[in-house]
Amino acid sequence: MNLIEKYPVELYNTLSRKKELFKPITEGHIGIYLCGPTVYSDPHLGHARGNIGFDVMNRYFQYLGYKVRFVRNVTDVGHLEDEVQGAGEDRISKKARLEKLEPMEIVQKYINSYRKYMDMLKILQPSIEPTASGHIIEQINIVKNILEHGFAYEVNGSIYFDVMKYMESGKRYGELSGKIVEDLMSGSRNLEGTEEKKNPVDFAIWKKAKPEHIMKWDSPWGEGFPGWHVECTAMSAKYLGVPFDIHCGGMDLQFPHHESEIAQCNGAFGKSPVNYWMHNNMLTIDGQKMARSLGNFITLEELFNGSHEKLEQAYTPMTVRFFTLQTHYRTPIDFSNEALQAAEKGLNRLMNSLDVLNSLTYTKENELNQNLEKEINELIESCFLSLSDDINTPQTLASLFDLSKHINSFKDGKTDLGSISKETFNNLKKYFNDFVTVILGLEKENSGNNDKLDGVMKLVLDIRKQARENKDWPLSDKIRDELAKAGIQVKDGKEGTSYSIN
Amino acid sequence: MNLIEKYPVELYNTLSRKKELFKPITEGHIGIYLCGPTVYSDPHLGHARGNIGFDVMNRYFQYLGYKVRFVRNVTDVGHLEDEVQGAGEDRISKKARLEKLEPMEIVQKYINSYRKYMDMLKILQPSIEPTASGHIIEQINIVKNILEHGFAYEVNGSIYFDVMKYMESGKRYGELSGKIVEDLMSGSRNLEGTEEKKNPVDFAIWKKAKPEHIMKWDSPWGEGFPGWHVECTAMSAKYLGVPFDIHCGGMDLQFPHHESEIAQCNGAFGKSPVNYWMHNNMLTIDGQKMARSLGNFITLEELFNGSHEKLEQAYTPMTVRFFTLQTHYRTPIDFSNEALQAAEKGLNRLMNSLDVLNSLTYTKENELNQNLEKEINELIESCFLSLSDDINTPQTLASLFDLSKHINSFKDGKTDLGSISKETFNNLKKYFNDFVTVILGLEKENSGNNDKLDGVMKLVLDIRKQARENKDWPLSDKIRDELAKAGIQVKDGKEGTSYSIN
Repeated sequence: MNLIEKYPVELYNTLSRKKELFKPITEGHIGIYLCGPTVYSDPHLGHARGNIGFDVMNRYFQYLGYKVRFVRNVTDVGHLEDEVQGAGEDRISKKARLEKLEPMEIVQKYINSYRKYMDMLKILQPSIEPTASGHIIEQINIVKNILEHGFAYEVNGSIYFDVMKYMESGKRYGELSGKIVEDLMSGSRNLEGTEEKKNPVDFAIWKKAKPEHIMKWDSPWGEGFPGWHVECTAMSAKYLGVPFDIHCGGMDLQFPHHESEIAQCNGAFGKSPVNYWMHNNMLTIDGQKMARSLGNFITLEELFNGSHEKLEQAYTPMTVRFFTLQTHYRTPIDFSNEALQAAEKGLNRLMNSLDVLNSLTYTKENELNQNLEKEINELIESCFLSLSDDINTPQTLASLFDLSKHINSFKDGKTDLGSISKETFNNLKKYFNDFVTVILGLEKENSGNNDKLDGVMKLVLDIRKQARENKDWPLSDKIRDELAKAGIQVKDGKEGTSYSIN
Repeated sequence: MNLIEKYPVELYNTLSRKKELFKPITEGHIGIYLCGPTVYSDPHLGHARGNIGFDVMNRYFQYLGYKVRFVRNVTDVGHLEDEVQGAGEDRISKKARLEKLEPMEIVQKYINSYRKYMDMLKILQPSIEPTASGHIIEQINIVKNILEHGFAYEVNGSIYFDVMKYMESGKRYGELSGKIVEDLMSGSRNLEGTEEKKNPVDFAIWKKAKPEHIMKWDSPWGEGFPGWHVECTAMSAKYLGVPFDIHCGGMDLQFPHHESEIAQCNGAFGKSPVNYWMHNNMLTIDGQKMARSLGNFITLEELFNGSHEKLEQAYTPMTVRFFTLQTHYRTPIDFSNEALQAAEKGLNRLMNSLDVLNSLTYTKENELNQNLEKEINELIESCFLSLSDDINTPQTLASLFDLSKHINSFKDGKTDLGSISKETFNNLKKYFNDFVTVILGLEKENSGNNDKLDGVMKLVLDIRKQARENKDWPLSDKIRDELAKAGIQVKDGKEGTSYSIN
């Protein structure tokens, strides 16, 4: 039995509000679309959170044997300041004006930054990374289709989605977010630049460009640019088909963005775009919402170099990744120095266990302990089962830490390695490694000159051993102190002396 | 006087076949367009060579004070197998078929690889990195313009550039490459799939897509895709204007690609696209052309990990960069193990001089040596003058090595540092650093755990010093030998003991 059959995956579908057994449209293949960044500012904690959770899902599906096509778009046009009303200035154009650059220079600058930090966080690169500005024809075709099917109207060179017509056709605008159209109607008003809409709840799928607007293209309705929501409909349809398997994003995107994607896809193709909608929860910082106005808006650059005033120290990308995985993706997560410092320690413990495990040599069976055998195999099994249970990473980490205890017990000699069978030992070694590195994507940091450092440290520890044998305590103490100053911890254990990097 | 005025730059213009004084269209600003990769295979030596030379030009212009907009495109559609005849299969579609991926997955895979290796080579990221598939509307508009102006004709859904009409208008197709249209006509024939052309020398600017073709878009002439040469005309015009300052590329692109860009731009806008055309020369391997059929086709991955059978060892990105800069961009370059090994040594010497220079402390003037003062300042001046002379990097390196001799002479105590003025010393320090790192883009490799390693090495060298003072030769020898084993060289000098990493 292959892994796909052995570990069927359940995912929480925002649309049905319950966990559902995942079944791909094409056997063995999965199409995933993740709403990527609007590239007008530096990537921040929110980007880390959203990507890490779905990255583990991607890695887990691939590990099980699925062929995944993972599409993460880049929004480089059409995302206006007021995204609910679809009003205000284009976010990238505005930043271009502020930084005195061409809009596409802004896009390049921030997409480079985004890719760099996602790489540092060990987020797998998407299979396809399409841009909104690179798919104008595809978006115009979506708008044409929606117009032809009567779910949109043109006013003065702009095209609006007609929510009332959509509702009259028996569809529900609000099915994903749970919003009620009547509430939306009474709760909102037409802001400046949106008076053309028949109803406040209608949204632009194509906007006429003002003469001073830089990012605009020819269309059957004159020069303009696509509405923000259209790009995801166009690009997911092009690269994943209609419908496709899984659409992910932050829960703040449920409305109006994802809600409108559903409406547009129904309007253009007469069917729903996605079988499983998945949303990650939000984050807080010391219990507060992250906001520039609150002075707690932390970019990944600041997090990794410790320069933000709220930070007591720098935190490595792997610490942030580990910390994020300690919380289930559907649960809110609170960042604080205490929590990150605890995560740093936890990560070190886990990675040390991995090193210990890889340094163990199995010699031979010696009075098999059936209970221990069973426990270890069940913990391995539980790593699979937790990830198959709506990507429950905290549960997987808990099982890995339970396994760590056994690993350390083998190392310390408290438990004889021979009390488990060679097969169980091999399973432990294989799956512990795979879960930590391949699936959770955790790895040791600072791997630059490690080989040289290792060579020198062997020498230093050897000199220290000699000094201790000669009872040359000043030298032995000096070595320990100077290493501590350099950030290297020496540990004397049963199996000899080892060191770890702080 | 600012640097731009002080060091006017001359560039060899392929169009005029001579060096010309460079004058930007807008004072203080430069627009540069470099033909980027067709992303259907791994980046190789040729990509390294082209990018490194023009990267130094970009860095030098920025250092002088210019604001540079550097556009490097990505060809992800329309580059057919036979690029002279514009015939055969699309290179990316073909690779997609072979690798069983969607064409845009191929594009993503190889653009990721390209970016990774360019980063390793310390090529500055372009200001804008536009894709051909992302600018279909812009390309259609170019084709429309050319049609309207009578320089193209439609046959069965494809549009061809009419070279004869172009010549009749008084323009010369061949002005860049020196080709004679009559020769082209008699030397070529209409291959399969190109019978529609009035003349063999005509080229497709829009191709009708066959039903099985994946990468195709709506156009006024039906579904199709743009001809390869059109993307550069469309994207350079969009992001740099018409005309713009500098167009670079490999000399193999002069014909038909760049020649056709000139014709298209004249056809669409009635003016020439570019003021300065620059082309880098080609490379050979052990004196032979690099070709898959000769078994000497070396990718950057193979070069950096030493896995190709022609390679005696791995060469680092900085060695390759240094090696490339030792040859002027317009001169052919021959890669061989001997030459790369010599470059590795040269780079180490240069970087060691940089370290030595940065470790020197100027105390006070002591019998000024006017000749030496003058020589050092002239060598610094010559670094500028050589780069201003058509980016003559080998000449700049020669001056830096002459400066190195003086630096080492100060270090060894052969020349008293006080024999040059503090001002000259400061100039030497500033400009030597700037030329090596900022302008030539060279840096020390292996910077991962250097801080830890440095801390431990201080301790080790301290223990060794103590051992020598105690005449504990066995310990002192052991330290030297073990460090050598770890790839670390200890050097005893006048100013104390230092180490270097092999």
